[in-house]
Amino acid sequence: MRIGILGSGLMGGKLGTIFARAGHDVIFSYSRSRRKLNRLAREAGSRASAGTPREAAEEADVLLLAVHWSRVNDVLKQAGDLSGKVLITCSMPMNASDTALTIAHGSSGAEALAKRTKRVKVVSAFGTIPSEVLFDVYAKRRKKVRPSLVYCGDNKRAKTVAARLIRDVGFDPVDVGPLRMARYAEPFTMLMAQVAYEGKGGPAVAYRIEQFKERKG
Amino acid sequence: MRIGILGSGLMGGKLGTIFARAGHDVIFSYSRSRRKLNRLAREAGSRASAGTPREAAEEADVLLLAVHWSRVNDVLKQAGDLSGKVLITCSMPMNASDTALTIAHGSSGAEALAKRTKRVKVVSAFGTIPSEVLFDVYAKRRKKVRPSLVYCGDNKRAKTVAARLIRDVGFDPVDVGPLRMARYAEPFTMLMAQVAYEGKGGPAVAYRIEQFKERKG
Repeated sequence: MRIGILGSGLMGGKLGTIFARAGHDVIFSYSRSRRKLNRLAREAGSRASAGTPREAAEEADVLLLAVHWSRVNDVLKQAGDLSGKVLITCSMPMNASDTALTIAHGSSGAEALAKRTKRVKVVSAFGTIPSEVLFDVYAKRRKKVRPSLVYCGDNKRAKTVAARLIRDVGFDPVDVGPLRMARYAEPFTMLMAQVAYEGKGGPAVAYRIEQFKERKG
Repeated sequence: MRIGILGSGLMGGKLGTIFARAGHDVIFSYSRSRRKLNRLAREAGSRASAGTPREAAEEADVLLLAVHWSRVNDVLKQAGDLSGKVLITCSMPMNASDTALTIAHGSSGAEALAKRTKRVKVVSAFGTIPSEVLFDVYAKRRKKVRPSLVYCGDNKRAKTVAARLIRDVGFDPVDVGPLRMARYAEPFTMLMAQVAYEGKGGPAVAYRIEQFKERKG
C-alpha cells in the first residue's frame, strides 16, 4: 500500500518507519523541519520518502493522521481534497496543555474529524498505545501471543485496511464496532497514558484482551 | 476481612462468592428476593451469610457497591452511616436503558459517589471486566500470568485493601492513580462491554496490561 503520514512526530514517525519496513511505500509529511522528515525517510529505508501533506495525500491508499489536535485543521487544509480516502486517526482531542480531552462523552475526536472531513473514510486506531512501545511490538511480531489493538469505524473496507496495518505493526486487531466507539477508546487512551507515564514500569506498555471460559461457579 | 456486598446481582453475587471462597467473611445484601440471597450465601460456603444492607455494613471492613446506578441512593440509605468505611464501587453511572453513561468527561460515577458519601473511602475497581469472566479468572489464579485489573482512589489504605481483594480474585492490580481516573476507567468499561457482548468470542473477556522494552528503532 501507499501510505501518507500526516504528522511525523513520535507516533507518525515510528508508525511510518514500521509501515515502510513492513513493505509499504510511505511518505512522511508535516514535521517541525524538513530536515527531520528527510532523516526519518532515510532511516526508514528505500520505500520511504519525505514530502508535503499534499504530496503525502496524492495517490495514497491510506493516510495516517498523527498531529496534535491543535494542528488538525492546518494539516487537513494543506493536504487538500481527501474525498474517498481512508484516514486512520490516532490524534487525540487534547486541550492546549495536554491535560484533558476537549471532546468526550457525547462525541469523540474521531467522530468530530469524520464530521469535518465528510467523504473521508475515518478509522480510529493506534491511539490506545504509547509510541514508546511500537518498535518492540514490531520486533516481537512473530511471537505467538501478540498485544491487542482496538479500532473502530463506519466503513468496512477502511476497517479492513486498518486491520491489515495493525497486524503489520505486530498487534492483534480488535474490532470494537462503529466510529462512535471512539468515545470510549479515547478515554481508554487517557488511562493507558496514565499507566505509561505515571506508572512504575516505564512508558512501553501495551494491552492484551484475553478470552476466558465462562464458568458458572 | 469482613466484606459487605451491597447489591447481590451478577457482579456482587459472583465477587462475594469468590471473596468467601478466598477466606473472607461475606454478607450478601440487596437482591430482588431474600431467597436469592440465602441461596447465594449457602452456595458460597460457611463464611457467607445473607442480610440487609445495614447488616452488611455493620462491622464490615470493606463494602462492595454493585447495584444498578438507579439503585445507588436507595441502597446507601438502607445501609446507614458508612463513615470511615472502605467502599469499593463497580457500579457504572448508566442511564435507565443501559445504553450510555449519565456522568462522564468532567466527572465519573465513582467521583459522584465519593461526593455523595463524603467520609467514605471510595475505590473504583472491578468495573472494567464483565461478571462472566470472574469464576474462570479465580479458577486460574495460580497461573503465572494473570489478567490485569485497574483500580483508582484517593485513600491509600483503602487502595491497599482493594488491591488485596483484586489479587484474591485472581487479577494483577494496576494502580491508575487518584479517583479522578475513574472518568477514564468507566468509558474503558464501556469498551470492554462492547468487546464482551458484541464481539465474536463470547462475554468472558479480561485484559492484561503488558510491559515491553523501549526500543529506539
